[in-house]
Amino acid sequence: MKTQVAIIGAGPSGLLLGQLLHKAGIDTVILERQTPEYVLGRIRAGVLEQGMVDLLREAGVSERMDREGLVHEGVELVFAGRRQRLDLKAHSGGKTVMVYGQTEVTRDLMQARQASAAPTVYEASDVWVHDAKSDAPYLTYRKDGEALRLDCDYIAGCDGFHGVARQSIPDGVLQTFERVYPFGWLGLLSDTPPVNHELIYAHHERGFVLCSQRSETRSRYYLQVPLDEKVEDWPDERFWQELKIRLPRDIADRLVTGPSLEKSIAPLRSFVVEPMQYGRLFLLGDAAHIVPPTGAKGLNLAASDVSTLYRILLKVYREGRADLLERYSQICLRRIWKAERFSWWMTQLLHKFPEKDGFDRRLQETERDYFLNSEAGRMTIAENYVGLPYEPID
Amino acid sequence: MKTQVAIIGAGPSGLLLGQLLHKAGIDTVILERQTPEYVLGRIRAGVLEQGMVDLLREAGVSERMDREGLVHEGVELVFAGRRQRLDLKAHSGGKTVMVYGQTEVTRDLMQARQASAAPTVYEASDVWVHDAKSDAPYLTYRKDGEALRLDCDYIAGCDGFHGVARQSIPDGVLQTFERVYPFGWLGLLSDTPPVNHELIYAHHERGFVLCSQRSETRSRYYLQVPLDEKVEDWPDERFWQELKIRLPRDIADRLVTGPSLEKSIAPLRSFVVEPMQYGRLFLLGDAAHIVPPTGAKGLNLAASDVSTLYRILLKVYREGRADLLERYSQICLRRIWKAERFSWWMTQLLHKFPEKDGFDRRLQETERDYFLNSEAGRMTIAENYVGLPYEPID
Repeated sequence: MKTQVAIIGAGPSGLLLGQLLHKAGIDTVILERQTPEYVLGRIRAGVLEQGMVDLLREAGVSERMDREGLVHEGVELVFAGRRQRLDLKAHSGGKTVMVYGQTEVTRDLMQARQASAAPTVYEASDVWVHDAKSDAPYLTYRKDGEALRLDCDYIAGCDGFHGVARQSIPDGVLQTFERVYPFGWLGLLSDTPPVNHELIYAHHERGFVLCSQRSETRSRYYLQVPLDEKVEDWPDERFWQELKIRLPRDIADRLVTGPSLEKSIAPLRSFVVEPMQYGRLFLLGDAAHIVPPTGAKGLNLAASDVSTLYRILLKVYREGRADLLERYSQICLRRIWKAERFSWWMTQLLHKFPEKDGFDRRLQETERDYFLNSEAGRMTIAENYVGLPYEPID
Repeated sequence: MKTQVAIIGAGPSGLLLGQLLHKAGIDTVILERQTPEYVLGRIRAGVLEQGMVDLLREAGVSERMDREGLVHEGVELVFAGRRQRLDLKAHSGGKTVMVYGQTEVTRDLMQARQASAAPTVYEASDVWVHDAKSDAPYLTYRKDGEALRLDCDYIAGCDGFHGVARQSIPDGVLQTFERVYPFGWLGLLSDTPPVNHELIYAHHERGFVLCSQRSETRSRYYLQVPLDEKVEDWPDERFWQELKIRLPRDIADRLVTGPSLEKSIAPLRSFVVEPMQYGRLFLLGDAAHIVPPTGAKGLNLAASDVSTLYRILLKVYREGRADLLERYSQICLRRIWKAERFSWWMTQLLHKFPEKDGFDRRLQETERDYFLNSEAGRMTIAENYVGLPYEPID
């Protein structure tokens, strides 16, 4: 088989890149290790920046999102039981975010891909990258027991943190930047109405809480838990009880509880590799970088990588601007590091760090006091939360 | 001897408090361990926030400052050899800072004190605080071999980090918050014209540099040096040579060098005690808190403590508002912690930290990139640099 752009991974980034390229008349083949059902079963983010919303519209897959998605103009922050609303729209020059689950984005993209008849190979195993540094790279993989080969011009690695794209790059090429946090997020998804019409980020002495949502009837709540906790130790009842303890009384009183649809613990991690490319192989999204979920940047960063690679490939195929390919990593990383900074900052602002000494704890309290009570401080939070502008490629 | 307010320390805070109280008709006596010449010989800060300038005017000691002081509307920041001017006035709603040496402030205050005939006892040794928790506190001290006693209503501890005021508070009363930094500042004072009309804060791989000034003919330069450096190892020639290496070429080329008038190494420290009071003893300035000098907040914080205690004492003596005395510490600390945060942040932004890992170094670079290239980010720097508003006392 031969294509122009081979994409590894049929998650939201791979599908979005495929859809954008398809609309531009550039051929793609997507190889995905899992089944479509498995991909849709992963519960992930749910807050889309304006830039990602615009990109989904450009890709022609926004119809349902524009109908069902919830536009949020603010978020609530809670410290010491005191609620403070941050007006995102007012503090970011009119920008907002869209609440629409990653699962729904993926579903819409899958349907568009199916309609386009561009090939997606699910359950492709043993995918491996070859000759990325040459003019004729290719992938090998197995499907239904058969060994296959996919020749291409370029390879997009959209296969996540544990994927093969990054692993196929020889040792010594990539520099790794990493920070682990001494806690995780225990998430619970339920078909209950959200406790608040906007998201609530709450700091509490027992740990951080996030009240999030996927729709007007589906809620997603998170609790900061120690890294060694097990999901089995958190029956629904215990989860709801702990959530109520950590929320302000008036919020807790109106919390509607219900059976969990999904419950899982995710560790928090900051991770970046540089560069994000190797010859004709390009890394996108989680394949190259991870942010802690505080600030909802993970999916949005993947979208900005997709936008960058898509715009570069357009210029390469249409205008012969192969020179831009070398700039992919540099263009992406500037925005990625800003999102890494913001996600790290929001994480340290909102969580309980058991190991912090007195001075660090006072600094944490003062950052809250300063940034939330200064107009300039609120603007810095708002402009990062709604998403900094995409970097130009030229 | 008896007075209303006994002040320990005749540095700028003690003298300023004394002058303000004197103008309000409240009696003070100042005890100072050193001679006037020694006090004037200490080379310290030189950048006054608007709030301190206003307070000096209120105290009636601003004539020479208003004539000779230099109003600065911006500062320059240098990263990777690239100069970037931060327009303080434009980004802080019209505020500026005043360049006028701490030595000159002290000299003006000394003259005013002398003119007021309010007593200042220099070379008062063995000062000690007694009965601070009672209604009748007093100080004991020795002068010219004689043991003396000063009775008073209230005691203001303006005697710096190493002074007796804080030490006289019993163990267990104060909570200490501290951070030490793995480097110091080597400062050089010279009668040479400043290399730039505004201050330059420069990050360099060999360490931080500050180009400061006291007047149009007197410069103060600083180099980040390891903590174990000795002044003896830094003859003037070596200092100037290192300074030139760390400055952008165009700045280095126009640097005018000359013999040093003073040269010293100061360690960098963040330090706060809580509370800042014990009965009728109140701690002000360095007696209660230290900031690293990056951001020029030390003297200015002392001034805001003076303002707070002065305004409280006015209400106590004039309106019988003794209830306000208990709020002194709480009122001061909110602003102090914000300045501690800013000084810590500027320090970590601008210095070279040899022990930082790759992730932390990228965060440091990204903080610069974000805060200096975002309008909101520049506003946060500017509003802190010119000085956040004084907290109301009531």
